[in-house]
Amino acid sequence: MLSKSRISHIRSLHQKKFREESRTFIAEGSKLVNEFLGSDFRVQAVYATDDWLKRHGDRSSAAEETNGVTAEELSRITALSTASDVLAVIHMPDHRPDLAAISKTYSILLDGIRDPGNLGTILRIADWFGIAHVICSPDSAEVWNPKTVQASMGSVIRVNTYEMEPASFLRSLPGNIPVYGTYLDGNSIYEEQFGDKGVLVIGNEASGIRPETAERVTKKITIPSFAPAGKGAESLNAAIAAAICCSEIRRKS
Amino acid sequence: MLSKSRISHIRSLHQKKFREESRTFIAEGSKLVNEFLGSDFRVQAVYATDDWLKRHGDRSSAAEETNGVTAEELSRITALSTASDVLAVIHMPDHRPDLAAISKTYSILLDGIRDPGNLGTILRIADWFGIAHVICSPDSAEVWNPKTVQASMGSVIRVNTYEMEPASFLRSLPGNIPVYGTYLDGNSIYEEQFGDKGVLVIGNEASGIRPETAERVTKKITIPSFAPAGKGAESLNAAIAAAICCSEIRRKS
Repeated sequence: MLSKSRISHIRSLHQKKFREESRTFIAEGSKLVNEFLGSDFRVQAVYATDDWLKRHGDRSSAAEETNGVTAEELSRITALSTASDVLAVIHMPDHRPDLAAISKTYSILLDGIRDPGNLGTILRIADWFGIAHVICSPDSAEVWNPKTVQASMGSVIRVNTYEMEPASFLRSLPGNIPVYGTYLDGNSIYEEQFGDKGVLVIGNEASGIRPETAERVTKKITIPSFAPAGKGAESLNAAIAAAICCSEIRRKS
Repeated sequence: MLSKSRISHIRSLHQKKFREESRTFIAEGSKLVNEFLGSDFRVQAVYATDDWLKRHGDRSSAAEETNGVTAEELSRITALSTASDVLAVIHMPDHRPDLAAISKTYSILLDGIRDPGNLGTILRIADWFGIAHVICSPDSAEVWNPKTVQASMGSVIRVNTYEMEPASFLRSLPGNIPVYGTYLDGNSIYEEQFGDKGVLVIGNEASGIRPETAERVTKKITIPSFAPAGKGAESLNAAIAAAICCSEIRRKS
């Protein structure tokens, strides 16, 4: 049985403040937890029903601690609307940006993406398109937010994420790296010649790329609209724009 | 002041059953409500703060009825987590699929998209890429769900949506229309020659395209992954896949 203090500790990890203090975060659901258990991440504790432990006991030995709990207990610690049969508490990795590696390939820079669901979706897109590095501005949604972790469908394990101030990240890269930013009046992505390296900047959902970051964008690009003139959506969702740009980059690079 | 019965009527429109009975739905927020007021949709009633009515009074005359309400009253009728300063009740349109028009262009067929946010995002994508017709299977999320309406960012106004059984929709089209379905083992979208017309089928978020629909798919297509072999995300979100396919279709068609 879980003690009250243990329950309140796990519940505290729904909040950023306590995740940062303990340098741990939570992940839920059999598929996702199994992915973490099979990865380089250190799993501090697994909380699972006896039934789950029977089926996945061999895997769960990778955790520092394993706890059989009831469905009712899981419903008290979950960050989901409906609890799964397993929840894990995981140590945050300590990714430090390897600028030499980043500057030889494509990376994504998120300049104020606020929605954890969007962030998780963008990590999944990066993972699909083999983009190994995602740099998040300090005011972006947090990678270890349970909503981000769940929306990433495990991609948070495979994509290296770093928190860094956008302008200082861009300043620290060699000067010959193209920095692509999406605008409504840039060069069509279908005409843009994407080379073998670059940074794709994705701006805030409502206000786009902020001026200090925009100063370092060297290539303004646009996803053309095909709506009749004067009609159509005004913009695309940030994750959708990221996906279309990544597809076009990979088609050509 | 809003009567109790009026409040409970508007709140009932958060539920599909009552939307269908009254053939009305709700939309919220100044930008979205103004778009509806300026469209062919018939707006049954606007509920807004006096301040909003002062600023948008001319527009709101397009509604059959206008009601000044308090912020507190809006918080009681909203379907959002935080109420805006205006909510409108709008008559559902009566779109009937014009199969002759649909068969001359590109359309999207949603085969069991369950998440209203995904549906709204797909409508926004269709709108951006000038795809005027979206056919939804009866078990898809509902177009007039407040979450769909809000996520579409007004695209629900411009894109024609129809509810129709997928296999019977596909049967009713001329035989020479290519029907594209996304699979993990189809032809690369970058190699596929998209012509000037076709149907893009997007399957359920978890289970993909169902067998009865798949029987009528004539072209299996794939968004190639660029992750290292054996690694990377297993799939892309349904709306993300739709966006990348639409971009590739429009680049070529």
